[in-house]
Amino acid sequence: MDNEKSSNKTAGKLIRCKAVVCREPGVPLVIEEIMVAPPSPYEVRIRIICTSLCHSDITFWSLKVPPACCPRILGHEAVGIVESVGENVNEVAEGDVVIPTLLSDCGECADCCSEKINLCSKFPFKVYPWMPRYEASKFTDLKGDVLYHFAFVSSFTEYTVLDISHVVKIDPAIPPNRACLFGCCIPTGVGAACKTAKVEAGSTVVIFGIGSIGLAVAKGAKLCGAKRIIGVDINPKKFEIGKKFGVTEFINSKECGDKSLSQVIIEMTGGGADYCFECVGLASLVQEAYASCRKGWGKTIVMGVDKPDAQLNFNSFDVVRSWKALMGSLYGGAKPKSDIPLMLKQYMDKELEVDEFVTHEVKFEDINKAFELLLEGKSIRCVIWMDRN
Amino acid sequence: MDNEKSSNKTAGKLIRCKAVVCREPGVPLVIEEIMVAPPSPYEVRIRIICTSLCHSDITFWSLKVPPACCPRILGHEAVGIVESVGENVNEVAEGDVVIPTLLSDCGECADCCSEKINLCSKFPFKVYPWMPRYEASKFTDLKGDVLYHFAFVSSFTEYTVLDISHVVKIDPAIPPNRACLFGCCIPTGVGAACKTAKVEAGSTVVIFGIGSIGLAVAKGAKLCGAKRIIGVDINPKKFEIGKKFGVTEFINSKECGDKSLSQVIIEMTGGGADYCFECVGLASLVQEAYASCRKGWGKTIVMGVDKPDAQLNFNSFDVVRSWKALMGSLYGGAKPKSDIPLMLKQYMDKELEVDEFVTHEVKFEDINKAFELLLEGKSIRCVIWMDRN
Repeated sequence: MDNEKSSNKTAGKLIRCKAVVCREPGVPLVIEEIMVAPPSPYEVRIRIICTSLCHSDITFWSLKVPPACCPRILGHEAVGIVESVGENVNEVAEGDVVIPTLLSDCGECADCCSEKINLCSKFPFKVYPWMPRYEASKFTDLKGDVLYHFAFVSSFTEYTVLDISHVVKIDPAIPPNRACLFGCCIPTGVGAACKTAKVEAGSTVVIFGIGSIGLAVAKGAKLCGAKRIIGVDINPKKFEIGKKFGVTEFINSKECGDKSLSQVIIEMTGGGADYCFECVGLASLVQEAYASCRKGWGKTIVMGVDKPDAQLNFNSFDVVRSWKALMGSLYGGAKPKSDIPLMLKQYMDKELEVDEFVTHEVKFEDINKAFELLLEGKSIRCVIWMDRN
Repeated sequence: MDNEKSSNKTAGKLIRCKAVVCREPGVPLVIEEIMVAPPSPYEVRIRIICTSLCHSDITFWSLKVPPACCPRILGHEAVGIVESVGENVNEVAEGDVVIPTLLSDCGECADCCSEKINLCSKFPFKVYPWMPRYEASKFTDLKGDVLYHFAFVSSFTEYTVLDISHVVKIDPAIPPNRACLFGCCIPTGVGAACKTAKVEAGSTVVIFGIGSIGLAVAKGAKLCGAKRIIGVDINPKKFEIGKKFGVTEFINSKECGDKSLSQVIIEMTGGGADYCFECVGLASLVQEAYASCRKGWGKTIVMGVDKPDAQLNFNSFDVVRSWKALMGSLYGGAKPKSDIPLMLKQYMDKELEVDEFVTHEVKFEDINKAFELLLEGKSIRCVIWMDRN
């Protein structure tokens, strides 16, 4: 395949390359050849080095209703090399190593200019089938039919196109199979602890759901100096895994006996946790997390996404008298272009270790193996290499 | 009547004095004579100088179901002089001027020792018929039947008994008809802006409900340097009143046309308010307030208390992606023994003006007039003098 060294040959032209296309929900992926259009103004085309599989990819691979759609190129956690840039792109150039980000960071809107929020209002986050700026696709199959984008990234392809607002340039010395994690998992989890919750040193944190995001929250909480990091899961094996990420105690939420989960947590913590992170995506569990928080200063951070119509119900007076805060966290509150470089620096300085996340690595042609490992709960992150011997 | 100068004659003895007793919900109050027991250890007996009428007194006067109960001595916003103290009371002495507080500040429990919360866990706030420490009443009528307490204060009487954890000693130079407001209205409203929300200078605040608490929030927001203070009410007369308290703009929530109230606010503020205070006590209005807040950094502070079973419903994903905070505020987050003296200092230093709150003053025998004025929306605070010539 083409690579960045021959970019001058491909710049401005369609690139024919390999990709996996989700053509039917839940059906194993097949590598096929697709055409990737050159970047328009404010866009860049990149060659993916490697991409890691996140549970959201599986969710949208198996989902049969909107915002899922077929045929679509999934994948959103990756690292790549800029093959060519469109007009008006000055931030990166051919050969630069970049991380695609599902959140935009346009640098111009009131939200991007604020330190308080990471949600660009120029290109708002949505699980969209198109590119953000022109609402069009860059992908076609060999019959000429349009293939849809995913989360403004679409990394399960050798080449993809990104809006410049969705690209973060990084140090090429960072190992790609670690750098890719900084596209979603690390900012989402570490950011939730450090940026959204601002976990204080010495505090007690409860993490509901010890999947990859919960483990990344644990990493973030540890980085902030949390004293107790209590993991909650229905799978007791998660405790052994969690220990490597900083989890100090474990609750099997299926083994609370006559007590509710929040009663168990309130007893364990002598009145409630300082911070509760809901990483599963169940409205009922958000309410349990809220109940588990220390009155007075407890913060409940909602990270998991339930069904679109799922409701959170709180007793009105409980809210008034509890003095607790309830807040959401998308992408950990991390602003892509400023926070990802900071987190990468923490990684390079060995303050933030992320090696434990990568439990498996496969070649692109074995992408279905990556899906199987995650579905079976055997992997945390499986890195898929696009071009490894 | 007895007063503090003759306290040595009454100390340790029952005091016979005048009080109004709520004997039947919603029926005009009648002054009768009652007996007030001497203070037990950790208690003080005070002579009320004046008391102001708060809407919560009316709520509990008219309510026919628990936690309302009869016969009860209502009133919770007052100032008085210590007549005598029980054993183990060192904090105040006979003749001291004090403000009774419905919230306890025991100074010993984890919550009282924390700067983050104002809710004592030794004597938790509840609308209780008894004294907090011994779960008994200090009041009997002349037949010897027990009369119930209200909110650990019961100020509609010439003499009342308070737990020492519910007493704040103040400078006797402060005018009593201003000092009494610092028992509930001022800490609740000013505290909500300054302590719970921590309103930033230059920000935009929306206050839902321009009653006395909403007006106190406006005072607090102004004190914090808010640039725009938008009042929302169904009564357009409230805008003229509100202006005196710092309200800069007004929305009649009945005149939003085809738009929802939150749509109107989002348009007025170019994306949503920085802070929304719900001061009415309607769960549906809390949700409207939450919707009116700026995504990213908007804070919704719930102050109004709806019916005990009222539920707040939020869409789960809206919470995750909105990055807004929802928090309750009881007593404005003010810690009685430390924050009331600070607020009184701000009043004495003319940083915080409270004169506008007192629209009427009546004698004790005209207490029903105070009820009428508030019920008719004619008063903000009516001060009731216990012993004025």
